[in-house]
Amino acid sequence: MAQKPSVPKGTRDFLPQTMLRRNHIFNTIKSVFVKFGYAPIETPAMEKTETLLGKYGEEGDRLIFKIMPRGRKQTKLMESGDLKMVEEALRYDLTVPFARFVVQHQNDLNFPFKRYQIQNVWRADQPQNGRYREFFQCDADVVGSDSLLFEVEFVQIYDEALSTLGLDDFTIKINNRKILSGIAEITGISDQLIDMTVAIDKLDKIGEEGVVKELTERNIPADAIEKIRPLFHFGQDNQENLNKIQTMLEGSEIGQKGVEELRFILDQIEVLGLRQAKLELDVTLARGLNYYTGAIFEVKANNLNIGSICGGGRYDDLTGIFGLKGMSGVGISFGADRIYDVMNELDLFPKLSQDATQIMFVNFGEAEQNFCLKKIKELRDAGVNAEIYPSNAKMKKQMKYADDKGIPMVALIGSQEMTDNVAKIKYLETGEQEDLSWDELLKRLKG
Amino acid sequence: MAQKPSVPKGTRDFLPQTMLRRNHIFNTIKSVFVKFGYAPIETPAMEKTETLLGKYGEEGDRLIFKIMPRGRKQTKLMESGDLKMVEEALRYDLTVPFARFVVQHQNDLNFPFKRYQIQNVWRADQPQNGRYREFFQCDADVVGSDSLLFEVEFVQIYDEALSTLGLDDFTIKINNRKILSGIAEITGISDQLIDMTVAIDKLDKIGEEGVVKELTERNIPADAIEKIRPLFHFGQDNQENLNKIQTMLEGSEIGQKGVEELRFILDQIEVLGLRQAKLELDVTLARGLNYYTGAIFEVKANNLNIGSICGGGRYDDLTGIFGLKGMSGVGISFGADRIYDVMNELDLFPKLSQDATQIMFVNFGEAEQNFCLKKIKELRDAGVNAEIYPSNAKMKKQMKYADDKGIPMVALIGSQEMTDNVAKIKYLETGEQEDLSWDELLKRLKG
Repeated sequence: MAQKPSVPKGTRDFLPQTMLRRNHIFNTIKSVFVKFGYAPIETPAMEKTETLLGKYGEEGDRLIFKIMPRGRKQTKLMESGDLKMVEEALRYDLTVPFARFVVQHQNDLNFPFKRYQIQNVWRADQPQNGRYREFFQCDADVVGSDSLLFEVEFVQIYDEALSTLGLDDFTIKINNRKILSGIAEITGISDQLIDMTVAIDKLDKIGEEGVVKELTERNIPADAIEKIRPLFHFGQDNQENLNKIQTMLEGSEIGQKGVEELRFILDQIEVLGLRQAKLELDVTLARGLNYYTGAIFEVKANNLNIGSICGGGRYDDLTGIFGLKGMSGVGISFGADRIYDVMNELDLFPKLSQDATQIMFVNFGEAEQNFCLKKIKELRDAGVNAEIYPSNAKMKKQMKYADDKGIPMVALIGSQEMTDNVAKIKYLETGEQEDLSWDELLKRLKG
Repeated sequence: MAQKPSVPKGTRDFLPQTMLRRNHIFNTIKSVFVKFGYAPIETPAMEKTETLLGKYGEEGDRLIFKIMPRGRKQTKLMESGDLKMVEEALRYDLTVPFARFVVQHQNDLNFPFKRYQIQNVWRADQPQNGRYREFFQCDADVVGSDSLLFEVEFVQIYDEALSTLGLDDFTIKINNRKILSGIAEITGISDQLIDMTVAIDKLDKIGEEGVVKELTERNIPADAIEKIRPLFHFGQDNQENLNKIQTMLEGSEIGQKGVEELRFILDQIEVLGLRQAKLELDVTLARGLNYYTGAIFEVKANNLNIGSICGGGRYDDLTGIFGLKGMSGVGISFGADRIYDVMNELDLFPKLSQDATQIMFVNFGEAEQNFCLKKIKELRDAGVNAEIYPSNAKMKKQMKYADDKGIPMVALIGSQEMTDNVAKIKYLETGEQEDLSWDELLKRLKG
């Protein structure tokens, strides 16, 4: 093979530096999920085509990666062109496989079932900046309960995970689909609910006049638009906004239900407090996914030109597509790639990883090597990440290895140090050196 | 969809209990890899077909899952039957993608490059007990150095990882391909090396007479077989066996090189010691993979009817297939599914996971719920995994939820406990109850 090998379009290799950062994100989110009682599951990369097809719209079906049949089925496919021969496909998201999982294992699960799932998904989209054909989703959902405590919990989870990662200026936007239904109801356009939500959801991007134009183009009557218009002038105070929308939705039962649900969540969060997040009621927030039926969430990092970094909401009938009715659920998703970009932009990644080498021993030759191997064993037994350069190479080469690998400290143990039984340490960032006893070195490395 | 949904043949869902156990295995192995200076990488699930095909033999090519082309290429494939239209396939192991990775990123890597990789692979094998179409591989390799310190290190890694997981009776078998080449050389059958190794590798399974029969069937001359026969009568003492084989291989340069390499590794391990592993020189150990050129490893759990749980070895030219010559490497692999079976069999999984809910608060109604939510927040802020049952359901139902989820402790906070400001705790395993102050409870949960 003459030319340099490469990966398929839209896919990525992750080198150690990137992996450590990604793991930092995933591990932080994971530990927060666990803290709130969510348990991990995994589903296979491949699902049956019948599980996936028809769940993501026509466009989605086209973007699903399908697996070539083998043997006789492959021959049959080639002869007949009958795509029914294609029986397996790669998962397109984690939500449909999760719904399938809940239905399949319903007798073995503990309801309300709180699960998290961090796995890759595949979409045959045209790759572009920040859009890949293989990427990770990071979801937590609970099914089998309509308790609003879970909505409260998810607001806390967003706050705790992102605050722990070091973000200090982000907004959790919240709305409720029932509010949107109520608005459509009292303005007399219930049959145009989707047209209305699609348009007002764009307020951030195209401004009030843009939305009005789009509503008009979508044949929303002028008098309805005038009733909707006040929504675009809501202020910053959640309670005040909630009171406004409550008044506006008088006479709509579903609208009042939405207000009541939002009030519960806002009141609880008021009492419990948040670390860094601002919680903002945004009555124009709609989000694309039509299976949401209650609360909807979206999280944005403020002052950065990066789209939403998290999303979520309540759906009343996720498992219905697989024949299990009446399972209300609510779930959230962290956009790991975008969170990575935000943290990179804000320089929030820790300089040193817990999961990397803490000290490298320079190799001065056989006798020193044998001495160092024993010392390294003692350090490792005490939980320190340590390595020795594998040969008696030139000092410069050995130091470059440590430096390139981001190892903060090297030990220089020559015959003098062996005789004196001290550890000569060099810190790579400053170039400073010092002699430590082996006990002091261990303390330094463990502290 | 009337019938219950299911996963494709040979694939698995992992429920929380299994996930926690699998994560326990992976996290333990990972932390040992890191302790020895190995850094994580990941490669895409899909590779270009040209990267994979021809690397695993004809049988391997057949078992690779290939991806259906889309759009015009799909039409072309259907019309022409030309499989060159199939440009992507799922990885079949981690070794070939790693070789591709090293060649592709050679200018960005720090050599010797020590990496670990834990990802799933796919093989369209006929599924059977313990064999799946999607399974995890768990590999560590170093490329760009021929230092035998890495062989020593990998013996230590096997020992530490499996000992930490609780195994206390396992054997690391070691041999060297150069020993096998030496044996073939001095018995005059160098051109039948593979026939010889395939046969003697089966000593464990088919015994001495079985091996002799197979050697004969493979046309190994009778006088060569008689020279090989003493290998089947080696004892338990590594040093003695090494001396025996050294004498036997007098006159074979490559054989003496193999002896020298093994002696270095055995001597180092003798000095450094092992926690639970027995290290055993087995001159009949060959392992199937023909790319090994130096040390070969195999790990077995003793007294259990489960095949080898780990393997590995040195290869002198892994990246040559992608055009980068002269990169010596050595690597090992942990068989996670088999280790899982061993630990299950020996009941080695910890009863309680660090990554699961530690305490559940029973929900007695609105006032108690609001009180508990604040207490739960305090516990979570202190790092405790805690949850509340989401509604005021019957006590029996709430307790069943905690029990099914394996939560060890519930808090019963009614109006009396609120007044007294105490935490009434019930331990689910014993049924015992006690009243604790909130500080005591936190100490209990953190200790």
